[in-house]
This record gives sequence, structure tokens and C-alpha cells, in this order.
Amino acid sequence: MELWYTEKWTKNCDFSIKVKRELHAEHTGLQDIAFFDSYDFGRFFTLDGLMMVNEKDEFIYHEMIVHTPMSVNPNIKKVLVIGGGDGGTIRELTRYAGIELIDHVEIDKRVVELCKEYLPQTSCKLDDTRVVGNYTDGKDFVKGKKNYYDLIIVDSTDPIGPGEGLFTKEFYTDCYAALSEEGILINQHESPYFDDYAKEMRRAHEKIKSLFEIASVYQFHMPTYASGHWLFGFASKKYHPVKDHDKKAWDALGLKTKYYNSEIHDASFVLPNYVKDELESV
Amino acid sequence: MELWYTEKWTKNCDFSIKVKRELHAEHTGLQDIAFFDSYDFGRFFTLDGLMMVNEKDEFIYHEMIVHTPMSVNPNIKKVLVIGGGDGGTIRELTRYAGIELIDHVEIDKRVVELCKEYLPQTSCKLDDTRVVGNYTDGKDFVKGKKNYYDLIIVDSTDPIGPGEGLFTKEFYTDCYAALSEEGILINQHESPYFDDYAKEMRRAHEKIKSLFEIASVYQFHMPTYASGHWLFGFASKKYHPVKDHDKKAWDALGLKTKYYNSEIHDASFVLPNYVKDELESV
Repeated sequence: MELWYTEKWTKNCDFSIKVKRELHAEHTGLQDIAFFDSYDFGRFFTLDGLMMVNEKDEFIYHEMIVHTPMSVNPNIKKVLVIGGGDGGTIRELTRYAGIELIDHVEIDKRVVELCKEYLPQTSCKLDDTRVVGNYTDGKDFVKGKKNYYDLIIVDSTDPIGPGEGLFTKEFYTDCYAALSEEGILINQHESPYFDDYAKEMRRAHEKIKSLFEIASVYQFHMPTYASGHWLFGFASKKYHPVKDHDKKAWDALGLKTKYYNSEIHDASFVLPNYVKDELESV
Repeated sequence: MELWYTEKWTKNCDFSIKVKRELHAEHTGLQDIAFFDSYDFGRFFTLDGLMMVNEKDEFIYHEMIVHTPMSVNPNIKKVLVIGGGDGGTIRELTRYAGIELIDHVEIDKRVVELCKEYLPQTSCKLDDTRVVGNYTDGKDFVKGKKNYYDLIIVDSTDPIGPGEGLFTKEFYTDCYAALSEEGILINQHESPYFDDYAKEMRRAHEKIKSLFEIASVYQFHMPTYASGHWLFGFASKKYHPVKDHDKKAWDALGLKTKYYNSEIHDASFVLPNYVKDELESV
């Protein structure tokens, strides 16, 4: 018998992984979640049929989402993470001794509970004393907060289902207000290659660009996400991601990373022409 | 009815494309070739079951393989292209008025003939007056040539089947001898992500590094190749790909490109830690 997990990257393009077994599957009330053991990618889990995290390449996503802002402002103390119930983003954040508070907002408590059970590689630091778990909708949590966080990371699913509200102008406006004057917003910015993802990329960029003084996009190689060409947004009230990049401070921390380094940081903000054109068209 | 083309990225990982129809398929004597029309990727063709070129993203591969060396030495006059029967590499080369000769060596004449028939997007410049077509094995063609070419581009298939000889130390040694003192070698360098490809990446790098004064590797986002994270090698007797990068000269040419630009050039030589570690381990 062969068991294959297939993800539709588009209606006409599939990505399939041979799995050893399905470990667990349930409907949480908000979404379908499933955990699998695979041959090439180790353990992975899916939400509504899309792979979120696998043991082989989650380091790429989580290093790029965390170390990029942390090396622009090494004095970040208060962080809000929205989504990321797997814990990978929080694991990377807890490596910084200077961080005092990590407010974690995950709409679906079952994601956290199940990742703690099935995915220790990413969930291992969710019980760090600086982490405060909040099980509510990120867009409600951030509303009304003023001048508080130094960093907000929107580690969301695609803008379909529970993640939808995290791609609205109202939400980004609330994030702006919740950020201190030093504040940085990092958001899951989709992908430039397939039309449906590129459309979401442009929509997110248009909204963030209209609100923040500085709004850039950076790219990385994430082989298990559609097209393997993935983006994060970097938005800020005052910090430029490259001009204000504090390589010295970051290098002095001596953090060992597998994808991120200070040169990749700068290089990741350099985009191919077709991606620049799409972003500038908004 | 649905018709799907499936490519095995690994034994346990498939990439599948819904096709409208198979246009042509034959065994050329050397390999299996097939042409398809697809929904997401336009027309594409395969050799021995691996996608070579599709209309949607061939520009990425062909721009990165050509403009990178041409912007390091804008005075390149004599070029040898080994492989690349689809013509995309030659199409990009013919955009440079300064190039006087393009020796094209393709082991399989049927690839050229069929791409001329079915894939005009890439094959459109194969009849440029500067192009000399040679239908023989690249490793034989290059043997005995001395101090002649300014640029050799090895636009090969994977190191299985007809492309195998293009990944040997003997072949790279012959390329070194065939290059002028200004000479640059660009080679298809596989991918760092999946083990089988990473092994070939390390093998190629080890050989080239032992022969050339300068041997670097650069990366790009190529969504339809396994993992989407693909590499070319840049080797040279005297030119450093970044330190000797002549942005001014290249920008002055005013070439319109969809992926490549002068900033991507430098950024593409910056590699993630895990890729650097794999390359440095050889």
C-alpha cells in the first residue's frame, strides 16, 4: 500500500508527498487539522488541506520571520505573535534574552494542544515563562492596544478561513496603533508566482504600504509552499530593513542558524523584476 | 477526462501538472522527449520524464544563466553553449551585439528540431547568423580546444543519461583549457534541498573548485524544478562574479529583463547557511 498526501498548489498543479501514516486528524470546530509522518519531510501537519509546517524545512520559515526584524532592532522587548500555533516562531524568539514578553494569540487552541503533542520540534518553547497564550481572534486581540509592542509577527495561514481577517486594512491599522514608535510588523505575504497567491500578495502590500512609513517585502526559498518562492512583509514606522540592519549587534549574539545570516538578510530584500513590478503596480 | 503529467522530484515527492493535451512524444534514440500544453505553465517539454522548459518560467532560468556572466565581462565575444537544445540560452545571448560567435553543441539534434517546431518562445533565435549548430557530445566537442572561448555555458540535463559526461572532472578540465584567460564557465549546478540533488551539487562543486581560480555558486527561484531552489555555478580564471560585476556597463545596454537585475546579480551569490555548509564540506 502507498499513502500519498496531495496539496493543490493551484487547481491545475499538485504537490504530493508519500506518507508513512496519518497520526491524527480532526475538525477543531474552526478548521481541519491533520498530522502525518512522511519519508522526505519528517513529521508535518496540515490545516484545511494545506501544509503548515514540516520538520525538514520549517527552520527556513521560522528563521526568516524572526531574525530579520530582530537584527534591525536588537532592543525589541515586547512581541505579539498572531497565529503560529505550531510554536516555531516562538521557539526562535525565545533565543533572544532581551525579549521580555511574547503575547501569543492563536485563534484555535487545538492547534497549540496538538502541536505540543505531535510536533515537539516547533512547540518546544511554548511554555517559556515569557510566553502568554491567548486563544482568541488576533484581529480582536490587537484592537484597542496602543503604542505597546516593539514587534508584531503575523504568522497566519492563507487569507481563506480563519486567517482571512488578518489580511484586512482594519487589522493592519490596529497593528499600526498597537506598535510603539520603534515598532516593526512582519506579515506572511504569500507568493508572487501563481496568480491566486500573487493577487493576495498585492492586496496585502497595497494595504500595508498605505499605512506604514516603510513597507518592504523580502523573499526566501521555502520548497514545501506553493512554488517554493515565498515572501514576508517588513513594515515599520522608522526602521529601514536594510539601511538600519544592525549586523554587528546580531552577529555578536552568536546565534547558530541554518538558513538566515546577515548577508541573506540584505539579499532577501532584493527582488526579481517581475516581483517588483507586481508590487509596484498596487 | 483529466490528463495529468507527474514528475518525481524524489521517490517520495511528486509534482503534477494538469495538461490540455500531449502534442508529441518520441524516443529520439538517446532519450524520451514529449511536448505538452498545460493550463498553468503554457507549453512545456520533458526529457526522460523531467520537465526541461515551460513557457511560464523559462525566463528565470535563461536570464540567470546568461546575464550573470555577461555583466561580469561585457566584452565576451566567443561563446560555447553545451546543451540547451530548446534555444532559450541562445535567445538571451543573441541580445548582446558584442557577441560574435555562439558555438552551440547539442548531443540530440531532435531536441533542436522539435523545439523549433513546438517551442518558438525559446527556439526563436537558433537561426541567428552568429549561431553555429554542432550535433555531437559536448564532452567530445570541447576536447582539444585551447584558449578560445570567453564563455562556456553548460546548459545540461541532470547527471543521468546523456548529460552524465558533463558532470565529470575530465570535462571541466577540458572546459578550463578551452577558455581564454578571460574565460567564465557557467554550469547547471543542481539544487541543495533534496539529498539526491544536493549530492550532485557537491560533486560538481568539488571538481570545479579544484580546477578554477574562482568558483562560486548562485541561486534563483525556479518553481518547476525540484524544490524550486536551483543553482548555477560561476567559475573563472580571473573574474570574481561580484567584485568584478560591471553594473554600469550592463545597465547601459538597456536590456529589459523579467527576473535578472543588477541587484539580484549580487544577491544571488549570497547563500543560506545550510547551502554554504554543504558546499564548504567538499
